[in-house]
Amino acid sequence: MNGKLQIETISSVVLKDNPLGDPRRREIPVYLPPSYGAKRGRRYPVIFWLPGFTGTGRGAVNYNPWNETLVERFDRLIAAGRAREAILVIGDGFTAYGGSQYLNSSATGRYEDFIVSELVGYVEDKFAVVREREGRALFGKSSGGYGALILGMRHADVFAHVASHCGDAAFEACYAGDLLKLCAAVEKHGGSLERLVAEFRRSRDKKGFDHAVINALGMASAYSPNPKSPVGFDVPVDLRTGALLPSVWKRWEALDPVRACVRHAAALRSLKTLWFDAGTRDEFHLHLGARRLSDELKRLKIKHVYEEHGFGHMDMQPRYDVSLSLLSRRCARVDSTERPAKS
Amino acid sequence: MNGKLQIETISSVVLKDNPLGDPRRREIPVYLPPSYGAKRGRRYPVIFWLPGFTGTGRGAVNYNPWNETLVERFDRLIAAGRAREAILVIGDGFTAYGGSQYLNSSATGRYEDFIVSELVGYVEDKFAVVREREGRALFGKSSGGYGALILGMRHADVFAHVASHCGDAAFEACYAGDLLKLCAAVEKHGGSLERLVAEFRRSRDKKGFDHAVINALGMASAYSPNPKSPVGFDVPVDLRTGALLPSVWKRWEALDPVRACVRHAAALRSLKTLWFDAGTRDEFHLHLGARRLSDELKRLKIKHVYEEHGFGHMDMQPRYDVSLSLLSRRCARVDSTERPAKS
Amino acid sequence: MNGKLQIETISSVVLKDNPLGDPRRREIPVYLPPSYGAKRGRRYPVIFWLPGFTGTGRGAVNYNPWNETLVERFDRLIAAGRAREAILVIGDGFTAYGGSQYLNSSATGRYEDFIVSELVGYVEDKFAVVREREGRALFGKSSGGYGALILGMRHADVFAHVASHCGDAAFEACYAGDLLKLCAAVEKHGGSLERLVAEFRRSRDKKGFDHAVINALGMASAYSPNPKSPVGFDVPVDLRTGALLPSVWKRWEALDPVRACVRHAAALRSLKTLWFDAGTRDEFHLHLGARRLSDELKRLKIKHVYEEHGFGHMDMQPRYDVSLSLLSRRCARVDSTERPAKS
Amino acid sequence: MNGKLQIETISSVVLKDNPLGDPRRREIPVYLPPSYGAKRGRRYPVIFWLPGFTGTGRGAVNYNPWNETLVERFDRLIAAGRAREAILVIGDGFTAYGGSQYLNSSATGRYEDFIVSELVGYVEDKFAVVREREGRALFGKSSGGYGALILGMRHADVFAHVASHCGDAAFEACYAGDLLKLCAAVEKHGGSLERLVAEFRRSRDKKGFDHAVINALGMASAYSPNPKSPVGFDVPVDLRTGALLPSVWKRWEALDPVRACVRHAAALRSLKTLWFDAGTRDEFHLHLGARRLSDELKRLKIKHVYEEHGFGHMDMQPRYDVSLSLLSRRCARVDSTERPAKS
Repeated sequence: MNGKLQIETISSVVLKDNPLGDPRRREIPVYLPPSYGAKRGRRYPVIFWLPGFTGTGRGAVNYNPWNETLVERFDRLIAAGRAREAILVIGDGFTAYGGSQYLNSSATGRYEDFIVSELVGYVEDKFAVVREREGRALFGKSSGGYGALILGMRHADVFAHVASHCGDAAFEACYAGDLLKLCAAVEKHGGSLERLVAEFRRSRDKKGFDHAVINALGMASAYSPNPKSPVGFDVPVDLRTGALLPSVWKRWEALDPVRACVRHAAALRSLKTLWFDAGTRDEFHLHLGARRLSDELKRLKIKHVYEEHGFGHMDMQPRYDVSLSLLSRRCARVDSTERPAKS
Repeated sequence: MNGKLQIETISSVVLKDNPLGDPRRREIPVYLPPSYGAKRGRRYPVIFWLPGFTGTGRGAVNYNPWNETLVERFDRLIAAGRAREAILVIGDGFTAYGGSQYLNSSATGRYEDFIVSELVGYVEDKFAVVREREGRALFGKSSGGYGALILGMRHADVFAHVASHCGDAAFEACYAGDLLKLCAAVEKHGGSLERLVAEFRRSRDKKGFDHAVINALGMASAYSPNPKSPVGFDVPVDLRTGALLPSVWKRWEALDPVRACVRHAAALRSLKTLWFDAGTRDEFHLHLGARRLSDELKRLKIKHVYEEHGFGHMDMQPRYDVSLSLLSRRCARVDSTERPAKS
Repeated sequence: MNGKLQIETISSVVLKDNPLGDPRRREIPVYLPPSYGAKRGRRYPVIFWLPGFTGTGRGAVNYNPWNETLVERFDRLIAAGRAREAILVIGDGFTAYGGSQYLNSSATGRYEDFIVSELVGYVEDKFAVVREREGRALFGKSSGGYGALILGMRHADVFAHVASHCGDAAFEACYAGDLLKLCAAVEKHGGSLERLVAEFRRSRDKKGFDHAVINALGMASAYSPNPKSPVGFDVPVDLRTGALLPSVWKRWEALDPVRACVRHAAALRSLKTLWFDAGTRDEFHLHLGARRLSDELKRLKIKHVYEEHGFGHMDMQPRYDVSLSLLSRRCARVDSTERPAKS
Repeated sequence: MNGKLQIETISSVVLKDNPLGDPRRREIPVYLPPSYGAKRGRRYPVIFWLPGFTGTGRGAVNYNPWNETLVERFDRLIAAGRAREAILVIGDGFTAYGGSQYLNSSATGRYEDFIVSELVGYVEDKFAVVREREGRALFGKSSGGYGALILGMRHADVFAHVASHCGDAAFEACYAGDLLKLCAAVEKHGGSLERLVAEFRRSRDKKGFDHAVINALGMASAYSPNPKSPVGFDVPVDLRTGALLPSVWKRWEALDPVRACVRHAAALRSLKTLWFDAGTRDEFHLHLGARRLSDELKRLKIKHVYEEHGFGHMDMQPRYDVSLSLLSRRCARVDSTERPAKS
């Protein structure tokens, strides 16, 4: 690597005493580009990455000789002149259920605040970064892509550039199958969601639990928290029959990018970059949701780019070349190099 | 076998010139119990079986040394005293799309009429059968279970006894996944449903087509025919985005047992037997729909028996022992044995 | 169909009181070509088909609207002028273990005699067939292809034309994996082969048994029968360790076409047709054995044709067009049409 | 963690200019137990871990919230009093083909020397470790278990304690299937092993290559190097026919623990600990080889413990509790705590 990777440990204030007892300390990998530190006063744009469901900040830089990490990829793209220098920060929204969707939830904790306020602030304090929103990008894949879209809508004042790879959208298409599998899993635990949740949390390696079931728990804890429920959240289906519960489902829909974009149209219009993609072979059919999002944005006359590719959900990593290249260039327009340092 | 199997070939009037060009001649296996023909004037109850999706009458008696056919099973149960003698008739509702759901449809043909009128009439003409509805039972598995439920609702005057093994019910749970896969399949055919349908129909062995996709085509041809559509039917989702089309979906819902039972409450109350089961390991989650149907029937105060078992969708054949035993006993109550022959 | 299919039931003499208690009566489908019976005195060549492992004569003509049977295929090829008229006889070598490999074995019965003597004789007695070996062809797929090769070697006086589709050959490549799985299965049955065999035989639908395990039992019962063994046969590996037992393995090797061809070189040279194929995507790697057989035949200067194609083991049915066309033409050279009838 | 993990980077002398151009610098995670450094002069035993095929030193400590690393596990076991304090060193034998089997090979490099001399020496130089072989243990899983067995046999003077979890043994059972798949893969590359190898090496993420095929390449590069071969190694089968090549296979067999143990009987007898296990549900049937190894050791009257468990190859991690506990106790017998420090 030409740049430098360092792992920051942030002891979060907002995640302190979170309801699941998840660690308040989060390891945050930070990539500093090759020239970082070479020139006094130079400030760099920051690109924030949000890992997918079950992903973590630290895990995103795990070593695998046959799989380039996002950081290694960005370093290579910069070296090849295909991306501009920027700081790349790997976020973390992991919870005991696998992930928070980067939302605040009474069932999991204040992950939205953690990313948008605490993490952004920490980076700003510690590193030489551009202080304008035009110098900040947010992107991710799958649940991380969802996080980028939803936080982008809600915090367009913080991030001017947003990108999503196959982000969760059109929730009925994303999650209907998972919710049916959750019903079957609850059945196997004597019909008791509480017992399923208790056994899941007790299990050290989660090997006995289907990914779809974990996903359903994660989404419910993020989208429909309920402090009065014994497990801390509601599930949008009757677990005995699979029938949709409209009152809960409405809460999910309010957080579906396909619907939420209407409410946040003005914020979305203010973004300098709104880019997303999906693959036509996506095993979770996330290109269907992406198309609906694009249709809706068009209807609302919100400028955006939607690209479709031929990869599936699992092998789409080459697409990061596109987003890293794009975001680093867009951010770089406000790169404050050469400005007189005020410090 | 103690009884006798013969294959009838019925040249249907109602299926003549059906829109898919499917054969009007149907091979209908008929099982005659051991004592059939031994006593002049004795009349037997008739149990009609409806094969599942992609099943045929003739295929239901295919030979496999390690898989008992329904007919062999019934013969064994009678020999063991676990079922009463009855005639067992294997119906057929196969179409070029894999099946008709035993409904009349402008897209496929008059399969409801074929079963309820033509097949029942044919059997009555040709065999020594009880002529009262109390002597007629209708049952099936999966799409055949659906057929038994829906025809039972609509034609309680013809069949007094209805049984369904894991029949299609709660359509959003049954079919949502298939419809998403249909979208993906249409995508692969250049976004054209017509092209997909044309290639499907041209294909001799259907090996290139996913079962879920075939199922979606079959259901659409049965539930939402539309003579104005180039393919003859409507699909309840936007094929580009997967978004539900409410106007078409409403037509599907009207045929969903979970909803249709309300409209047919009086008929359902008139049934002498309304029995259904499902397995908690059903790969298609059909036990969820079965529970909803049972809930709805309870709410409507319609007498029925719903049994749950631990098998999956594919290995539940031992459950036929239960239904064959039950139906043969219920029908036998009006068994006209020993009545003075009038002929 | 233009021709006619009839199911003969042969009550075998040689299979009477076979050691597994398998039925001596076998259902044998016989296809009579369109012109059969039209012209007095005309005699037809006969093509014998041997089903694969777990296959049966009767099952080979099972109805499936989306899968042409071999008989339907032959009928279509004749109608299209792509094959010559011949009688097509579907053999049967099914046993309680799934198949006999068409060999005589003290563990299963005299299946070689059944095919070569009894079935050939029955057909000759009952149908107007050519009586010379030049008018008889034998072919099959997988275990049926093996049967054709091995019976062809041993009975070149009976069959002048032999064809095999992906027949078992190079036994170490064919069966090594199955034998390891047999070890694992015996393990699950308390380390007792006898118990495994007993449970297997007791099981009505065999659903609890892996195909590889059944195959290993079937091969052992065919290749290394041993009347002194409690199960009637030896297994060529130590079931606790998987180590090869050379004394038993030698018996298997003697029946491997790749080795057996040496011993039967003269007979093989006398064949009028020796044709086989295999697919490079064969899931059981049977093309490797086929290549070795071809190499060996070349070395022995035995005329043959070996064709390779791009299909796998399961989707190679289009290849039957090639073999049926070839065999029917070869046999037809001695078609005794127009000879003065002696009767 | 109570102890401390540090990643050492060793710039190897013996791996310099290795034939595959693999890095000479290796990252070696070293776990120092809680009391390390607390007491001047205390020396600790060292347990060396060898990762499995495609594993690396660095990758062995990758973070996953739902999967304890070996280091975290050992730390937990020490804290719970279930293991004794020791230094745990994660070795590395990764190559461009996925692994070296920890052997010296002209095709890959001097990995045996790297582990036995260089790594052991490095640890001795840098950390306060026991200097007697009684204070050194070597263990691993799968290919790492193989490495522990084979290096244990050859270097009993260096390591007194050896443990293997489901190590490769009885090579014909381990690798026969992989070699057939290698034939099929070579076929797809135009019949050219060179082309397959070239494409494999060029590929960045190896996604197009079956694990079995990679394994076959890795084993051939380790067991049968040949400087005269264009790819640097021989394969023990004819790639066109799958037929075993006895001259090459003999070289593989010489390295099979089941055979090699005979040659190394004296060394094996000198070990203080020789322990191995395997699971009866091992997907690669490695329990069969383990049994054969145990049989052979018994025959040779070599003391050892062989344990069998009910896990498969992939979910056997709980077994590390057993080996870590055992090895740490065995090593601790020579723990030089309290000896007067000589420095």
